[in-house]
Amino acid sequence: MILINGELKNTLTITDRGLHYGDGLFETIEVVQGQPVFLRQHLARLKAGCQTLKIPYPDETLLLDELKKICECCEQGVIKLMLTRGSGGRGYRQPEFVKPTRIVALHAYPDYPEHYKTQGIQARFCHARLGLNPLLAGLKHNNRLEQVLARSEWQDEFQEGLMLNLHEHVIEGTMSNLFVVKDQIVYTPEISVSGIKGVMRQIIMHIAEQNNIPLQEALLTKGFVLQADELFVSNSVIGIWPIRSLENKSYPVGKLTQKILVALMDYKARDIAA
Amino acid sequence: MILINGELKNTLTITDRGLHYGDGLFETIEVVQGQPVFLRQHLARLKAGCQTLKIPYPDETLLLDELKKICECCEQGVIKLMLTRGSGGRGYRQPEFVKPTRIVALHAYPDYPEHYKTQGIQARFCHARLGLNPLLAGLKHNNRLEQVLARSEWQDEFQEGLMLNLHEHVIEGTMSNLFVVKDQIVYTPEISVSGIKGVMRQIIMHIAEQNNIPLQEALLTKGFVLQADELFVSNSVIGIWPIRSLENKSYPVGKLTQKILVALMDYKARDIAA
Repeated sequence: MILINGELKNTLTITDRGLHYGDGLFETIEVVQGQPVFLRQHLARLKAGCQTLKIPYPDETLLLDELKKICECCEQGVIKLMLTRGSGGRGYRQPEFVKPTRIVALHAYPDYPEHYKTQGIQARFCHARLGLNPLLAGLKHNNRLEQVLARSEWQDEFQEGLMLNLHEHVIEGTMSNLFVVKDQIVYTPEISVSGIKGVMRQIIMHIAEQNNIPLQEALLTKGFVLQADELFVSNSVIGIWPIRSLENKSYPVGKLTQKILVALMDYKARDIAA
Repeated sequence: MILINGELKNTLTITDRGLHYGDGLFETIEVVQGQPVFLRQHLARLKAGCQTLKIPYPDETLLLDELKKICECCEQGVIKLMLTRGSGGRGYRQPEFVKPTRIVALHAYPDYPEHYKTQGIQARFCHARLGLNPLLAGLKHNNRLEQVLARSEWQDEFQEGLMLNLHEHVIEGTMSNLFVVKDQIVYTPEISVSGIKGVMRQIIMHIAEQNNIPLQEALLTKGFVLQADELFVSNSVIGIWPIRSLENKSYPVGKLTQKILVALMDYKARDIAA
């Protein structure tokens, strides 16, 4: 089920700037018990992205209405909420009056095995390097060729690939953010010149603060990551997946990972109940 | 008039990866006397881009057939030829069998005043910086948010904005490549970590070689560009536009610019006649 500007459709006008330039933003939202999870945080990020890209943020009641409609027919699933700069002519210049395109699409919940969460996943390092771009770093925009190329490096042998940027700092997974536990401190890569600031990443940072777990944003090297005590990745659909193997090294599903995982489950349950 | 995979249409399936990730490439081709100009060079670049992005290059007879159909109804115009990785599910991973989407769209020839070519244009430097990304540099791919943001910095006061990258090297215009004449040598920015290798740029480099005009690819600073004897920009639609003003400095439509412009007109006439 897909709503485009509120209408049930599955095609888009060919002049949409989302197609021509990746000129848009998106949110991937988990649906549980017919509710979009962490909706407030997702909409806040979308709004912030609109400000950076100068895309007019739509009337939020429209978005909420469309999300509600989509959720009505779904107990569990994933919503991809996309906002593009709408239609335009040939050329980068935006039209005088921008009418953004709202796309709200419902997808089946992916059938990830439960043991990814309990026993961890197998990860690798990607060859493709993230570029440097402070202007766009942090945003979940539609210019995602780097992730597409990185994800094309393997098939099913791994559940995630970690990406370094041109400075040889480890930044994120192709579809997730990274957390590294070392000596009772949780580190997550600084997202200032490369990478996406995931909503789940923000939530984990908040949970760590609430639970007095030391957490720092930092520039992390491959060597530092490999010497971790615990490793995990996060996104809005998977929540947290521990990493159990990376480059022939093994990692336990450690105590801090478990503590954050339990706190996240609790935080999420409260969000759904609210 | 728009052909999508050979069919006359103006909508695209919402699952196209061009929309979701800017996962595609495009060519902007001038049509003169019902002929796509420099078609061989455009298709060669498209093919090279496909190899880098691992998008299957379509059967070229299909593309040629669709381009011919589009040109039949047009004396002069601009074709945007786009190739995306086709439809896919949610997520960066490409489908097992990729069926690229071919989009061939005809646009009216833009009504640029003739004096842009004869007397030159007014240009500015953009604030937005191009990121660094050797993986994607050179390609005319659909991840074009940098150009969109740069082009949003002004309205009609200028005809082009020049962009620097994070290294503070001048790379290109938002929709053109740059050439700088200094002491009888033509310089054009090296496109290795940022920017697009325009088809017209390649042709101008070829013409310079044929005409024994010294031309070098180089790392150019803003200061060097400002101290130029002559400046011009190029793309497949405008051909060559001299720059007559940049940051309160004036530039003549100089002898080397004129020499290249005349040689290009001749080279183009021969391409159309062939």
